[in-house]
Amino acid sequence: MVNPFNDAYFMGEALKEAQKAFEISEIPVGAVVVCKNRIIARAHNQTEKLTDATAHAEMLAVTAAANYLGSKYLNECTLYVTLEPCVMCAGALHWVQLQKLVFGASDVQRGYSLVSTPLLHAKTEVQRGVMAEEAKALIDNFFKKLRA
Amino acid sequence: MVNPFNDAYFMGEALKEAQKAFEISEIPVGAVVVCKNRIIARAHNQTEKLTDATAHAEMLAVTAAANYLGSKYLNECTLYVTLEPCVMCAGALHWVQLQKLVFGASDVQRGYSLVSTPLLHAKTEVQRGVMAEEAKALIDNFFKKLRA
Repeated sequence: MVNPFNDAYFMGEALKEAQKAFEISEIPVGAVVVCKNRIIARAHNQTEKLTDATAHAEMLAVTAAANYLGSKYLNECTLYVTLEPCVMCAGALHWVQLQKLVFGASDVQRGYSLVSTPLLHAKTEVQRGVMAEEAKALIDNFFKKLRA
Repeated sequence: MVNPFNDAYFMGEALKEAQKAFEISEIPVGAVVVCKNRIIARAHNQTEKLTDATAHAEMLAVTAAANYLGSKYLNECTLYVTLEPCVMCAGALHWVQLQKLVFGASDVQRGYSLVSTPLLHAKTEVQRGVMAEEAKALIDNFFKKLRA
Protein backbone atom coordinates (compact mmCIF):
# COMPACT_ATOMS: atom_id res chain seq x y z
CA MET A 1 0.00 0.00 0.00
CA VAL A 2 1.24 3.45 -0.86
CA ASN A 3 1.86 5.69 2.15
CA PRO A 4 -0.72 8.47 1.84
CA PHE A 5 1.38 10.68 4.11
CA ASN A 6 4.06 11.74 1.70
CA ASP A 7 5.57 15.10 0.75
CA ALA A 8 2.81 15.79 -1.80
CA TYR A 9 0.14 15.16 0.82
CA PHE A 10 1.66 17.49 3.38
CA MET A 11 2.50 20.17 0.82
CA GLY A 12 -1.11 19.92 -0.31
CA GLU A 13 -2.12 20.78 3.25
CA ALA A 14 0.29 23.73 3.25
CA LEU A 15 -1.29 24.85 -0.04
CA LYS A 16 -4.72 24.76 1.62
CA GLU A 17 -3.32 27.18 4.20
CA ALA A 18 -1.94 29.38 1.40
CA GLN A 19 -5.40 29.38 -0.18
CA LYS A 20 -6.88 30.60 3.12
CA ALA A 21 -4.42 33.49 3.07
CA PHE A 22 -5.40 34.27 -0.52
CA GLU A 23 -9.04 34.47 0.45
CA ILE A 24 -8.38 37.08 3.13
CA SER A 25 -6.11 39.16 0.84
CA GLU A 26 -2.85 38.11 2.44
CA ILE A 27 0.15 37.14 0.33
CA PRO A 28 -0.72 33.44 -0.10
CA VAL A 29 1.91 31.44 1.74
CA GLY A 30 0.99 28.46 3.89
CA ALA A 31 2.87 26.07 6.14
CA VAL A 32 2.40 22.94 8.20
CA VAL A 33 4.70 21.33 10.74
CA VAL A 34 4.80 17.54 10.72
CA CYS A 35 6.09 15.37 13.54
CA LYS A 36 6.01 11.57 13.28
CA ASN A 37 3.69 11.72 10.25
CA ARG A 38 1.19 13.98 12.04
CA ILE A 39 0.44 17.62 11.39
CA ILE A 40 1.00 19.42 14.69
CA ALA A 41 0.68 23.00 13.44
CA ARG A 42 -0.88 24.83 10.49
CA ALA A 43 -0.53 28.49 9.62
CA HIS A 44 -0.79 31.01 6.83
CA ASN A 45 0.67 34.42 6.35
CA GLN A 46 -1.15 37.01 8.48
CA THR A 47 0.97 40.12 8.18
CA GLU A 48 -1.99 42.31 7.22
CA LYS A 49 -4.53 40.85 9.60
CA LEU A 50 -2.18 41.09 12.57
CA THR A 51 -0.51 44.32 11.35
CA ASP A 52 2.78 42.56 11.98
CA ALA A 53 5.39 42.23 9.26
CA THR A 54 6.89 39.29 11.16
CA ALA A 55 3.69 37.18 11.07
CA HIS A 56 4.88 34.93 8.26
CA ALA A 57 3.37 31.47 7.92
CA GLU A 58 6.61 29.84 9.04
CA MET A 59 6.98 31.98 12.18
CA LEU A 60 3.40 31.29 13.25
CA ALA A 61 3.69 27.56 12.47
CA VAL A 62 6.98 27.17 14.30
CA THR A 63 5.73 28.96 17.42
CA ALA A 64 2.53 26.89 17.39
CA ALA A 65 4.47 23.63 16.95
CA ALA A 66 6.86 24.45 19.80
CA ASN A 67 3.88 25.29 21.96
CA TYR A 68 2.18 22.00 21.06
CA LEU A 69 5.30 19.95 21.81
CA GLY A 70 6.28 21.95 24.88
CA SER A 71 9.78 22.11 23.41
CA LYS A 72 11.93 24.89 22.02
CA TYR A 73 13.35 22.49 19.47
CA LEU A 74 11.74 21.01 16.37
CA ASN A 75 14.59 18.62 15.67
CA GLU A 76 12.20 15.78 14.92
CA CYS A 77 9.89 17.87 12.74
CA THR A 78 9.51 18.72 9.08
CA LEU A 79 8.24 22.12 7.99
CA TYR A 80 6.34 22.19 4.71
CA VAL A 81 5.99 25.67 3.32
CA THR A 82 4.70 26.73 -0.08
CA LEU A 83 7.34 29.43 -0.65
CA GLU A 84 11.04 29.48 0.12
CA PRO A 85 11.53 31.05 3.57
CA CYS A 86 13.01 34.54 3.92
CA VAL A 87 16.09 35.37 6.01
CA MET A 88 14.03 36.01 9.15
CA CYS A 89 12.25 32.67 8.86
CA ALA A 90 15.46 30.80 8.02
CA GLY A 91 16.98 32.33 11.16
CA ALA A 92 14.00 31.07 13.17
CA LEU A 93 14.36 27.59 11.64
CA HIS A 94 17.98 27.66 12.71
CA TRP A 95 17.07 28.41 16.32
CA VAL A 96 14.51 25.58 16.48
CA GLN A 97 17.04 23.18 14.91
CA LEU A 98 14.48 22.03 12.37
CA GLN A 99 15.08 18.47 11.16
CA LYS A 100 13.81 18.97 7.61
CA LEU A 101 12.58 21.83 5.47
CA VAL A 102 10.46 21.14 2.40
CA PHE A 103 9.45 24.12 0.32
CA GLY A 104 7.58 24.69 -2.91
CA ALA A 105 8.39 27.72 -5.06
CA SER A 106 11.74 29.47 -4.84
CA ASP A 107 11.66 33.12 -3.81
CA VAL A 108 14.02 34.81 -6.22
CA GLN A 109 13.71 38.16 -4.41
CA ARG A 110 13.69 37.33 -0.71
CA GLY A 111 14.64 33.66 -0.40
CA TYR A 112 17.17 32.75 2.29
CA SER A 113 19.28 30.86 -0.24
CA LEU A 114 20.20 34.16 -1.92
CA VAL A 115 22.44 34.81 1.10
CA SER A 116 25.82 33.22 0.56
CA THR A 117 26.34 32.28 4.23
CA PRO A 118 24.38 29.12 5.21
CA LEU A 119 21.54 30.31 7.45
CA LEU A 120 19.84 27.06 8.39
CA HIS A 121 21.09 24.69 11.08
CA ALA A 122 23.83 22.38 9.83
CA LYS A 123 21.61 19.37 10.57
CA THR A 124 18.55 20.62 8.65
CA GLU A 125 17.84 18.61 5.52
CA VAL A 126 16.32 20.63 2.66
CA GLN A 127 14.08 19.63 -0.21
CA ARG A 128 12.93 22.29 -2.62
CA GLY A 129 10.48 22.40 -5.51
CA VAL A 130 7.67 20.21 -4.10
CA MET A 131 4.44 21.35 -5.85
CA ALA A 132 6.29 24.52 -6.79
CA GLU A 133 4.05 25.29 -9.75
CA GLU A 134 0.86 25.28 -7.69
CA ALA A 135 2.47 27.47 -5.02
CA LYS A 136 3.82 29.93 -7.58
CA ALA A 137 0.52 30.07 -9.50
CA LEU A 138 -1.31 31.07 -6.32
CA ILE A 139 1.16 33.87 -5.60
CA ASP A 140 1.17 35.06 -9.22
CA ASN A 141 -2.64 35.16 -9.21
CA PHE A 142 -2.60 37.15 -5.99
CA PHE A 143 -0.35 39.87 -7.39
CA LYS A 144 -2.18 39.88 -10.72
CA LYS A 145 -5.44 40.50 -8.84
CA LEU A 146 -3.80 43.13 -6.63
CA ARG A 147 -2.52 45.09 -9.64
CA ALA A 148 -5.72 44.73 -11.69
CA MET B 1 19.94 72.00 28.79
CA VAL B 2 21.17 68.56 27.94
CA ASN B 3 18.52 66.38 26.32
CA PRO B 4 17.89 63.61 28.86
CA PHE B 5 16.49 61.40 26.10
CA ASN B 6 19.70 60.34 24.44
CA ASP B 7 21.13 57.00 23.36
CA ALA B 8 22.56 56.33 26.83
CA TYR B 9 19.15 56.92 28.42
CA PHE B 10 17.29 54.59 26.08
CA MET B 11 20.00 51.93 26.19
CA GLY B 12 19.79 52.16 29.97
CA GLU B 13 16.11 51.30 29.66
CA ALA B 14 16.97 48.36 27.39
CA LEU B 15 19.48 47.24 30.03
CA LYS B 16 16.72 47.30 32.65
CA GLU B 17 14.83 44.88 30.43
CA ALA B 18 17.93 42.69 30.12
CA GLN B 19 18.20 42.70 33.91
CA LYS B 20 14.60 41.45 34.13
CA ALA B 21 15.53 38.56 31.83
CA PHE B 22 18.55 37.80 34.02
CA GLU B 23 16.35 37.60 37.08
CA ILE B 24 14.09 34.98 35.52
CA SER B 25 17.03 32.92 34.21
CA GLU B 26 16.69 33.97 30.58
CA ILE B 27 19.71 34.95 28.51
CA PRO B 28 19.78 38.64 29.50
CA VAL B 29 18.98 40.65 26.39
CA GLY B 30 16.63 43.62 26.50
CA ALA B 31 15.18 46.01 23.96
CA VAL B 32 13.08 49.13 23.69
CA VAL B 33 11.50 50.75 20.64
CA VAL B 34 11.52 54.53 20.57
CA CYS B 35 9.34 56.71 18.38
CA LYS B 36 9.52 60.51 18.57
CA ASN B 37 11.54 60.35 21.80
CA ARG B 38 8.99 58.08 23.51
CA ILE B 39 9.38 54.42 24.42
CA ILE B 40 6.48 52.63 22.73
CA ALA B 41 7.56 49.05 23.47
CA ARG B 42 9.79 47.25 25.96
CA ALA B 43 10.74 43.58 25.92
CA HIS B 44 13.27 41.07 27.13
CA ASN B 45 14.25 37.65 25.92
CA GLN B 46 11.61 35.07 26.89
CA THR B 47 12.66 31.95 24.97
CA GLU B 48 12.52 29.76 28.10
CA LYS B 49 9.39 31.21 29.65
CA LEU B 50 7.44 30.96 26.38
CA THR B 51 9.19 27.75 25.25
CA ASP B 52 9.74 29.52 21.95
CA ALA B 53 13.20 29.86 20.44
CA THR B 54 11.94 32.81 18.39
CA ALA B 55 10.89 34.89 21.43
CA HIS B 56 13.94 37.16 21.33
CA ALA B 57 13.70 40.62 22.87
CA GLU B 58 13.79 42.26 19.43
CA MET B 59 10.98 40.11 17.98
CA LEU B 60 8.73 40.79 20.96
CA ALA B 61 9.54 44.51 20.98
CA VAL B 62 8.98 44.91 17.25
CA THR B 63 5.64 43.12 17.32
CA ALA B 64 4.52 45.17 20.34
CA ALA B 65 5.60 48.43 18.68
CA ALA B 66 3.77 47.62 15.44
CA ASN B 67 0.71 46.75 17.47
CA TYR B 68 0.94 50.04 19.39
CA LEU B 69 1.32 52.10 16.21
CA GLY B 70 -1.21 50.09 14.20
CA SER B 71 1.40 49.95 11.44
CA LYS B 72 3.46 47.18 9.91
CA TYR B 73 6.35 49.61 9.49
CA LEU B 74 8.67 51.09 12.08
CA ASN B 75 10.31 53.48 9.65
CA GLU B 76 10.17 56.31 12.18
CA CYS B 77 11.43 54.22 15.08
CA THR B 78 14.71 53.37 16.73
CA LEU B 79 15.31 49.97 18.30
CA TYR B 80 17.72 49.92 21.23
CA VAL B 81 18.90 46.42 22.04
CA THR B 82 21.64 45.38 24.43
CA LEU B 83 23.13 42.70 22.15
CA GLU B 84 23.69 42.65 18.40
CA PRO B 85 20.63 41.07 16.74
CA CYS B 86 20.84 37.59 15.23
CA VAL B 87 19.98 36.77 11.60
CA MET B 88 16.31 36.12 12.44
CA CYS B 89 15.93 39.45 14.21
CA ALA B 90 17.84 41.32 11.49
CA GLY B 91 15.43 39.78 8.97
CA ALA B 92 12.51 41.04 11.07
CA LEU B 93 14.06 44.52 11.28
CA HIS B 94 14.32 44.46 7.49
CA TRP B 95 10.62 43.70 7.10
CA VAL B 96 9.58 46.51 9.44
CA GLN B 97 11.91 48.93 7.64
CA LEU B 98 13.40 50.09 10.91
CA GLN B 99 14.72 53.65 10.79
CA LYS B 100 17.60 53.16 13.22
CA LEU B 101 19.20 50.29 15.12
CA VAL B 102 21.32 50.98 18.18
CA PHE B 103 22.92 48.01 19.85
CA GLY B 104 25.28 47.42 22.73
CA ALA B 105 27.58 44.41 22.71
CA SER B 106 28.59 42.67 19.50
CA ASP B 107 27.59 39.02 19.19
CA VAL B 108 30.68 37.32 17.84
CA GLN B 109 28.90 33.98 17.47
CA ARG B 110 25.42 34.81 16.18
CA GLY B 111 25.44 38.47 15.20
CA TYR B 112 23.81 39.40 11.90
CA SER B 113 26.90 41.30 10.81
CA LEU B 114 28.81 38.01 10.53
CA VAL B 115 26.78 37.35 7.38
CA SER B 116 28.47 38.98 4.41
CA THR B 117 25.21 39.91 2.63
CA PRO B 118 23.59 43.05 4.12
CA LEU B 119 20.51 41.84 6.01
CA LEU B 120 19.01 45.09 7.28
CA HIS B 121 16.92 47.44 5.17
CA ALA B 122 19.06 49.77 3.05
CA LYS B 123 17.57 52.76 4.88
CA THR B 124 18.30 51.50 8.40
CA GLU B 125 20.97 53.51 10.17
CA VAL B 126 23.12 51.50 12.58
CA GLN B 127 25.01 52.49 15.69
CA ARG B 128 26.88 49.84 17.62
CA GLY B 129 28.72 49.75 20.91
CA VAL B 130 26.43 51.91 23.08
CA MET B 131 26.94 50.76 26.70
CA ALA B 132 28.46 47.60 25.29
CA GLU B 133 30.46 46.83 28.44
CA GLU B 134 27.41 46.83 30.70
CA ALA B 135 25.49 44.64 28.24
CA LYS B 136 28.35 42.18 27.87
CA ALA B 137 29.01 42.03 31.63
CA LEU B 138 25.38 41.02 32.23
CA ILE B 139 25.60 38.22 29.65
CA ASP B 140 29.00 37.04 30.91
CA ASN B 141 27.65 36.94 34.47
CA PHE B 142 24.66 34.94 33.29
CA PHE B 143 26.76 32.23 31.66
CA LYS B 144 29.24 32.21 34.55
CA LYS B 145 26.34 31.57 36.94
CA LEU B 146 24.86 28.94 34.62
CA ARG B 147 28.12 26.98 34.47
CA ALA B 148 28.92 27.31 38.17
